[in-house]
Amino acid sequence: MRITVLAGGVGASRFLRGLVAAAPDAKITVIGNTADDITLFGLRVCPDLDTVMYTLGGGINVDQGWGRADETFSVGAELAAYGAEPSWFTLGDRDFATHILRSQLLASGLPLSAVTRTLCSRWRLGLELIPMSDDKIETHVKIKTDDMERSRVSPQHPQPSADPLASPAASLVDPAVTGLIHFQEWWVRLHAAVPASAIIPVGAAEAKPAPGVLEAIAEADFVLFPPSNPVVSIGPILAVPGIKDAVAAKTVVAVSGIIGGAPVRGMADVCLTTIGVETTAAAVAAHYGAELINGWLVDEQDKAAADDPALAGIAVRAIPLYMRDVPSTAAIARAAIDLAQELAR
Amino acid sequence: MRITVLAGGVGASRFLRGLVAAAPDAKITVIGNTADDITLFGLRVCPDLDTVMYTLGGGINVDQGWGRADETFSVGAELAAYGAEPSWFTLGDRDFATHILRSQLLASGLPLSAVTRTLCSRWRLGLELIPMSDDKIETHVKIKTDDMERSRVSPQHPQPSADPLASPAASLVDPAVTGLIHFQEWWVRLHAAVPASAIIPVGAAEAKPAPGVLEAIAEADFVLFPPSNPVVSIGPILAVPGIKDAVAAKTVVAVSGIIGGAPVRGMADVCLTTIGVETTAAAVAAHYGAELINGWLVDEQDKAAADDPALAGIAVRAIPLYMRDVPSTAAIARAAIDLAQELAR
Repeated sequence: MRITVLAGGVGASRFLRGLVAAAPDAKITVIGNTADDITLFGLRVCPDLDTVMYTLGGGINVDQGWGRADETFSVGAELAAYGAEPSWFTLGDRDFATHILRSQLLASGLPLSAVTRTLCSRWRLGLELIPMSDDKIETHVKIKTDDMERSRVSPQHPQPSADPLASPAASLVDPAVTGLIHFQEWWVRLHAAVPASAIIPVGAAEAKPAPGVLEAIAEADFVLFPPSNPVVSIGPILAVPGIKDAVAAKTVVAVSGIIGGAPVRGMADVCLTTIGVETTAAAVAAHYGAELINGWLVDEQDKAAADDPALAGIAVRAIPLYMRDVPSTAAIARAAIDLAQELAR
Repeated sequence: MRITVLAGGVGASRFLRGLVAAAPDAKITVIGNTADDITLFGLRVCPDLDTVMYTLGGGINVDQGWGRADETFSVGAELAAYGAEPSWFTLGDRDFATHILRSQLLASGLPLSAVTRTLCSRWRLGLELIPMSDDKIETHVKIKTDDMERSRVSPQHPQPSADPLASPAASLVDPAVTGLIHFQEWWVRLHAAVPASAIIPVGAAEAKPAPGVLEAIAEADFVLFPPSNPVVSIGPILAVPGIKDAVAAKTVVAVSGIIGGAPVRGMADVCLTTIGVETTAAAVAAHYGAELINGWLVDEQDKAAADDPALAGIAVRAIPLYMRDVPSTAAIARAAIDLAQELAR
């Protein structure tokens, strides 16, 4: 059995742990979202790839869902003591090592997919993790100019300044011109509390899928979407030209990250509101559409979605959908596999 | 009073602490050796500049003489777990922050002198620290080819390999062609136990003094050499075109790092042997020569140097020269100032 999974960060990683338990003999390929990536202190940080890597590799801070277990924070404290910006993104020391090595390997000329393979070789994930693209894609969020001013000077995009510590990583866009700020700044610094009018995976339209991405989709028995954020995790992957068409040609089962009208974790509701989609399991399935997904796993409290006329052509199954631990998550993964195999017939 | 000091790492830093105590109102400019610099994990490491910065800034590991106090080692442990090379150079987490920020600022286009000023602004050194040059200079050591083979593949210069983790920083020279290895590899990895036939500050001949270096020398009342390594600390500074002539035009008092026929600290004897200079206070003074230095402070046990005909033209003073603590070091600095003022008359 060959399974290909499009993956964001925390939710996807927990689902994948269950999937590996449910299908230990399957060849699993994970196409990881890289649109959350950001350059901090000159180092390339890939939050979603690393969350998958650390979770499957056993290095994750399990309670938190991201970052390393047994972490220390000396580097970040020192950077703050130097006055280096940004100060709103916490990176632990063990995590810094990953970003240092990634940045060194990228600077040596290796593409992100090869760098990811090298980093993952230490962790023995039990699956293959491929970034969606070797090209730089960064989700940016359009916020109102006065909100941007009210949120003061963005550390990612400071005013021209004589202070070299206040001029961090180059970004793909200039907020003063575009009104766009990096997703991480909106998400982490502003806690998504400033209304957004658009969420744009900058660079996606010109990007190419990384080597192996289209092959992994084409050769899969079916494709799964874990309960990842449909707007900023699954969305950017599908925005890379070629990936959506390749996925649409396969049997696809998606797992809802919305239960009872709210995201299980994170702030997917804010993202959905921004793109004009209701925060309900049914609305997210309709957003994906029957031309993309064939099966939709919802929680039992959302079983009414099965009768929603907007979901015509999508097989809806209701099961307990909270990923409490590995066994309960394996049961969800098992249900996704069963539905996909049923639909693939 | 304006004093300019050429400085290596540990010995210079301890001397400078005494100098600041001895002459709190003097304007002190330190020209720091950068030929020990090395790129590790893609980050630019400047051991001598940082030792001066941490020591004068109060962040040094006092007992060790280099590195940060209250240091942690998570980043290095993680890099080792990834199999990243080199594994023979220990960097602590707090220290990593300095290298991360330095590398980010260098990558943004700032010259090393401006980066050093920015880093030092946090530490309030009580003096000005300028790297000898903004150009890259790295001391390399020529060892016999069979010794190089016996010391196995140099992690800094691995054989061509498919393993990206084994191909670290680009160096200025290719050891397979030149028989040269980076000074740090000889010093730290091989403990200088492999005989060297030459010690060469690669890049020095083409380098320019950093902005402010020649001015600081020209405007100084006198120039001091702390008890730094004459071959790999003071030597490379003097090898930058223009600096030696500027220094020679001033009154110069140097402090011997050799006491009783042995270096007080470190392995200066091995370096001196390599360039054919005896490990005695008198031989080092003769190596500098009367055309460069005017005064030479030796320990009381080396007072016979005063009668050495090879030191004609150099005023030798014998005093207790062990830098046991700040007061004893301040007394040495005071003696150096007194001798310089006497000679400058």
